[in-house]
Amino acid sequence: MTDLVIRNATVVTCDPAGTVIADGGVAVRDGRIEQVAASVELEAAAAGARRLVDGKGHILMPGLINTHCHAGDSLFRGLVEDLPLEPWLQTVWKAEGAILNPETCYLGSVLGFAELLLSGVTTVMDMFWYPEETVRAARTVGMRVSTGGIFFDPPGVTGDNLKGRIAAAERFFEMFSDAEDVFPAVLPHGAYTVAPENLKTAKQLAERHGALFSTHAAETRAEQADVTGRYGRSVIRHLDDLGLLDERTLLAHCVHLDDEEIQILARTGATAVHNPVSNLKLASGFARVPEMLAAGVRVTLGTDGAISGNDLDMWMALRLAATLHKAVTGKADAVSTAQALAMMTSAGAEALGAAGRIGSLEAGKLADMILIDVKRPHAVPMFDPVTHLVYSTARSDVRHVFLSGEQVVRDGALTRHAIGQTIEAVERLKPRIAASIA
Amino acid sequence: MTDLVIRNATVVTCDPAGTVIADGGVAVRDGRIEQVAASVELEAAAAGARRLVDGKGHILMPGLINTHCHAGDSLFRGLVEDLPLEPWLQTVWKAEGAILNPETCYLGSVLGFAELLLSGVTTVMDMFWYPEETVRAARTVGMRVSTGGIFFDPPGVTGDNLKGRIAAAERFFEMFSDAEDVFPAVLPHGAYTVAPENLKTAKQLAERHGALFSTHAAETRAEQADVTGRYGRSVIRHLDDLGLLDERTLLAHCVHLDDEEIQILARTGATAVHNPVSNLKLASGFARVPEMLAAGVRVTLGTDGAISGNDLDMWMALRLAATLHKAVTGKADAVSTAQALAMMTSAGAEALGAAGRIGSLEAGKLADMILIDVKRPHAVPMFDPVTHLVYSTARSDVRHVFLSGEQVVRDGALTRHAIGQTIEAVERLKPRIAASIA
Repeated sequence: MTDLVIRNATVVTCDPAGTVIADGGVAVRDGRIEQVAASVELEAAAAGARRLVDGKGHILMPGLINTHCHAGDSLFRGLVEDLPLEPWLQTVWKAEGAILNPETCYLGSVLGFAELLLSGVTTVMDMFWYPEETVRAARTVGMRVSTGGIFFDPPGVTGDNLKGRIAAAERFFEMFSDAEDVFPAVLPHGAYTVAPENLKTAKQLAERHGALFSTHAAETRAEQADVTGRYGRSVIRHLDDLGLLDERTLLAHCVHLDDEEIQILARTGATAVHNPVSNLKLASGFARVPEMLAAGVRVTLGTDGAISGNDLDMWMALRLAATLHKAVTGKADAVSTAQALAMMTSAGAEALGAAGRIGSLEAGKLADMILIDVKRPHAVPMFDPVTHLVYSTARSDVRHVFLSGEQVVRDGALTRHAIGQTIEAVERLKPRIAASIA
Repeated sequence: MTDLVIRNATVVTCDPAGTVIADGGVAVRDGRIEQVAASVELEAAAAGARRLVDGKGHILMPGLINTHCHAGDSLFRGLVEDLPLEPWLQTVWKAEGAILNPETCYLGSVLGFAELLLSGVTTVMDMFWYPEETVRAARTVGMRVSTGGIFFDPPGVTGDNLKGRIAAAERFFEMFSDAEDVFPAVLPHGAYTVAPENLKTAKQLAERHGALFSTHAAETRAEQADVTGRYGRSVIRHLDDLGLLDERTLLAHCVHLDDEEIQILARTGATAVHNPVSNLKLASGFARVPEMLAAGVRVTLGTDGAISGNDLDMWMALRLAATLHKAVTGKADAVSTAQALAMMTSAGAEALGAAGRIGSLEAGKLADMILIDVKRPHAVPMFDPVTHLVYSTARSDVRHVFLSGEQVVRDGALTRHAIGQTIEAVERLKPRIAASIA
C-alpha cells in the first residue's frame, strides 16, 4: 500500500536529465519513492494512499545536501568577529576548549541541525568533536549525517593522542557502519594541523571501512604558505602525494588553487566543497568554481559552521555559488543555474557515494523531499522553477520536509523535537560562552 | 497622550553614537518618537499609553532605507536570465514596452513594495515609469517613497519626448511636493541613455524644486567605455563636469571607479548606492566600497529591481555589503558592521536629505520602526545585536513594522492590503509577460 502521495506541485527532480514536471508529484512506499509523475498519473496511487498532500503553489524537490558543516559551532555564533582565519581560529579553539563536552556538542548540533532541517537540508556532512553526539543530534531532529572520527594533532577538545583518535574513529564505525541514516567518514582537520603520516593513517582507516574522507584544504593563502613552507609543496599536491585523493575524498573550500591543482582534483575524482558564505566572511577569497567545473571537478556546496557564516543558510550559499563567480569572471553565464542546483543535490549525493539513494527524486530512492512555497510576494511570478530556486528562494520558503517519507518539518516547524527547549538551554549556556574568551 | 509604547526589546538605535539599549524601547505620540529609553524609564509613558507592545526576544531598530529600486520590475522577475547588462537591458526593455502602463506599473510596484515592507524597508528610492503610480503603490502598503519624473531619451514606455518628460516631472512635483511620505526626485536613467544637455535640464528641474537627483552611474565596464567613447571622459567625470554632483545626488552602482573618481564623489558629497546582489548577478563586478568609505564618500544600500536581483532582499544586500569586500581585499575588517548597518539606516536618511526625520530611533523623528525576532534556531545565541543584524538576520525574521507609529506589518503580514489579490493579478498577467519576449 502506498503510504504518501504528494501531487499538484511543480516537481524539480534534479535527475540526470534535469526533468521538471509542471504539475506532478510522487508516491512513497516504505520510505522510498515508488513513482515520480504528473498528477494525473498519480491517481491510482492516490486512491489507495494512507496520506495525501496537496503541493499546489509549491515546488517539490529532493532534500538538500550540505557537504561541509560544523553544526555544534552554532553555540559560538557571532562570538568572534572580523578576524582573518588564523587568529580567528585561535580564539574559536579557546572557546571550544572551555565549553565543549559531549553534552554541549549535542546541544550545539541540535541547534545547528534544526536550522538546517528547517531550511530543507536532509543530509549533512559534519566535522565535530564527539561525532556520536552528532549522530544523536541528527536523529533528534530527523536528518541524515555523514561524520566520524576527527584527526587533529594538538590535544583539542578531547585531549586524545593519535591512539585515542584511532580508537574513537573505530568506535564510531562499530556503532554506525550499518545505519541507513549515517554515512561514516574519517575527518582529519587539515594539512596544517595533522602530520603527513597521521593523514595517511586516517585515510587507511577510512579505506578499511569503505568510508568517506574529508578535510579542510586550501582555504586561505596563509594555509597554502604554511603547508608549502613545511612540506615544499602546496596543499593539494601534498594531499595527492600522500595518496589521499580519490572519489571518496571531500575537500572543504579549495579557494586557492592553480591550474595544475584543479587538474589534480579532476584526475583523482576528489570533490571540492564550495563554502562561499564562509569564504567571504573570513576574507578567504573566491574559489575558482567555473574553472573547476570546466575541468570536470565535482563541486558541491557547504555552509561551513555558524561561527564563520554566521548561519547555516544553504539558499544563500546557493545564490552566491551561482552569482559570485559571474562578478569575478565578468561572465553572466559563469556558473549555470543547473550546475549550481546540482551542487546541493545530485553532486552532493555523488560526493557522499550515495547517488543511488539520495540527491534526486527518482523511483527507488529514499523519499527525502521538500516542499517550497512559491506564492509569496518575493516569489511571484515564476517563469522557470530552476532559476527560481537558485535566484529567488529563501530558506523561510521551505514549508515541509520529509525524510524517508516521514514528515520532519510541518509548516516551518520541526515535528520530532520541541526546539524551544534547545534554545532555552543555549541561552542558559551563553554567559559561560561569552566568559570563555574574556 | 502617548499612542504606543514598545518595551523589553534590544534597541539598536542607529543614532550617531551607535547607542544600543539592552532592555529598552520607545514611546510614540502623533506618529513621532517622543522617547527612546530603557524599559524601566518607559513606565510612566506605558501607564498612559493607548497601546503596549512587548518587544521581548526582538531587536527594535529603525525602518530600513533602500536607496535604489525599480519595484515595478518585479513583474519580470526571472524572465531574462544570465546575460550581461547590455543585452539583458534590451530584452527587459522589450518586455517593459509590451506590458507596462499605469495599471501594470501600479500592480508591479505593489508587489515589490509588499516584499520590501515585509522585510522591514519603510523608505525606498524607486525609479520607474508613471511615478505617481509608484506613490499610489507605496501608500497602498504603507511606506515612504522617493521618486519622480524619469528622463530617458528614447521613447521608452510612455513615448514622451523631452518636453513630455519635463511636463511629467513638473506634474509630479505639483502632486507630491508637500507630502510627508514622498521625497520628490528627478531620475534620469543614465549617462548613456540621456544626452548631456538633458541631464542638465533634469538637474535644474530638481534644484528648482529642492528635490533629489538620482541616476545609474558606472555600473559596468561597457558603460564606462561607451560614455568615455562619446564624451572623452569617464561617467563620474562626465557627471561632475556637467555640474550634476552634490549632496542631493544619488548615483546607483558606482562599480568601476578609479581613485580620482572616488575623490570626486568625496569632494562633491554625492552618494554612491551599493547594489551588491544585482552587481553579482549581472556580472557587473565589485564596487570599491572600502576605498569609498575610507575617502569619506557616503555609501548607501540598494536592492535594485527584482529583474536583476531576483528579489528585493535588503538583508542579503547588507550581508554582502559587509562580507564581499573582505574577500575582495583579503581583509576581514574591510567593512565594519557599523558601517554596513549605516548604509541602510542613517546614511540612507542623509542621502535622502531626511536625516532629521528617519534613519534612526531618536526623539522627534518619525516612528518608522521594525521588530526582529532573534529567538529562532538560526539566530541564537546573540552576543552582539549589531553583528547579529549584519551577519545573521534574514528578512523573514522581521515580524512587525511601524510607519509613523502605524503598524503596517503584523506577524509577517501586511495590515493595509490583502496581498493575495495582487499575487492573483500578477499570475493572470504572467502569460502575457512570458509572450512579450517570445
